Amino acid sequence: MRYELYYWPTIQGRGEFVRLALEEAQAAYVDVARGLKKEGAGVPALLKLLDGKTVAQPPFAPPFLKAGPLIIGQTPNILLFLGQRHGLAPRSEAGRLWANQLQLTIADFIVEVHDTHHPIASGLYYEDQREEARRRAADFLEVRLSRYLGYFERLLAASPGKAAWLAGRSLTYPDLSLFQVVAGLRYAFPRAVQRFERKCPRVVELHDRVAARPRIAAYLASDRRIPFNEQGIFRHYPELDLA
Amino acid sequence: MRYELYYWPTIQGRGEFVRLALEEAQAAYVDVARGLKKEGAGVPALLKLLDGKTVAQPPFAPPFLKAGPLIIGQTPNILLFLGQRHGLAPRSEAGRLWANQLQLTIADFIVEVHDTHHPIASGLYYEDQREEARRRAADFLEVRLSRYLGYFERLLAASPGKAAWLAGRSLTYPDLSLFQVVAGLRYAFPRAVQRFERKCPRVVELHDRVAARPRIAAYLASDRRIPFNEQGIFRHYPELDLA
Repeated sequence: MRYELYYWPTIQGRGEFVRLALEEAQAAYVDVARGLKKEGAGVPALLKLLDGKTVAQPPFAPPFLKAGPLIIGQTPNILLFLGQRHGLAPRSEAGRLWANQLQLTIADFIVEVHDTHHPIASGLYYEDQREEARRRAADFLEVRLSRYLGYFERLLAASPGKAAWLAGRSLTYPDLSLFQVVAGLRYAFPRAVQRFERKCPRVVELHDRVAARPRIAAYLASDRRIPFNEQGIFRHYPELDLA
Repeated sequence: MRYELYYWPTIQGRGEFVRLALEEAQAAYVDVARGLKKEGAGVPALLKLLDGKTVAQPPFAPPFLKAGPLIIGQTPNILLFLGQRHGLAPRSEAGRLWANQLQLTIADFIVEVHDTHHPIASGLYYEDQREEARRRAADFLEVRLSRYLGYFERLLAASPGKAAWLAGRSLTYPDLSLFQVVAGLRYAFPRAVQRFERKCPRVVELHDRVAARPRIAAYLASDRRIPFNEQGIFRHYPELDLA
């Protein structure tokens, strides 16, 4: 069976957390909305499954994953499913709940990152909420960034061994997601993050370790990895970064 | 075994979604932070588990649930656990993923409700972000409210039978959460919601059906139900409602 991933074709966005898991699992998948319209793919194929006319239980929004007869929406839910199927989650119930809990905390983190450039309305342009974005981004960099990264740093510090993972002795899907968050924060807020990285060396080291894994390194070097840009979650607006 | 729920003692907040599931399940639980400090309960007991010194895998934030040796954080994760244990979730894998997906969509909805009064910083007072809140609330009422409620209305409309539930033929935990969202929206935005309810009769009917269930009705009438107030997610600031 080949998975079908449905996500906006021009951004990493939330879909990227799913792509990283699929790549690390070496799962067969097609990134449907990046395919050709004339071959039945592209954005129309995505919109068709969203509109609820052909699907009994349509997702609220992308990303969603078609796995045979299943259509699974919501990023942490897709990862819960993939993690268990592909050895990217702990095996025990307690471990799986912990991995899901970590992923949900990362999901909260991502919402706050997104809202630094869209504090008023996701349907408005950044330019129409720039003043509010300045205020929100300042609070994010001053208060929230260290709250989240400090949390993950403490978890890794408390974990036994030098090369710690977030949930157990080997890599699980929240590790892939934390890699993506660090990569995205470096893109969006290079000045703030550079100053902050000294305070969370274990998080940075985990990022580097994930990036060096053969399948992830190959993916990052491929054209399957969409570059960061100013339409995704992590956007580089210099005026929102530290001075 | 008696569950221990840890949540802020003076608000419904995210903890309420867990309380509703515990009440419907008639599970034995203690709402720890509402207990007495001199008996080892109260807010200090909550903070102790958050600080990471006594717990190997501390949660990022309340609510969290102690279930024997397990400490489970993040509302949708707690409900995933309770739903399966107490017959409040579908039995099939597909059904459980669908219930989790619904709960994650409700979680996104709740973040947007919260941010109507706190668009800039959760650590600042409402009064310090009132102008931004007006803008964000207006967009929420104009665009987002109908997007979310319309989605749930369509799901219920597509479900067979007159008295539909969101996931299968009987009540599951996302139904309890949707009840709470409707109750909260009515409190926070009475004018906007009153106008909107005609467009989502099935959602309103589901709310009423949940409220009438004997265990939920008994809970709502008890002093275990904390009244809505201006410290929680759903706050009534008349200036944010429709004119």
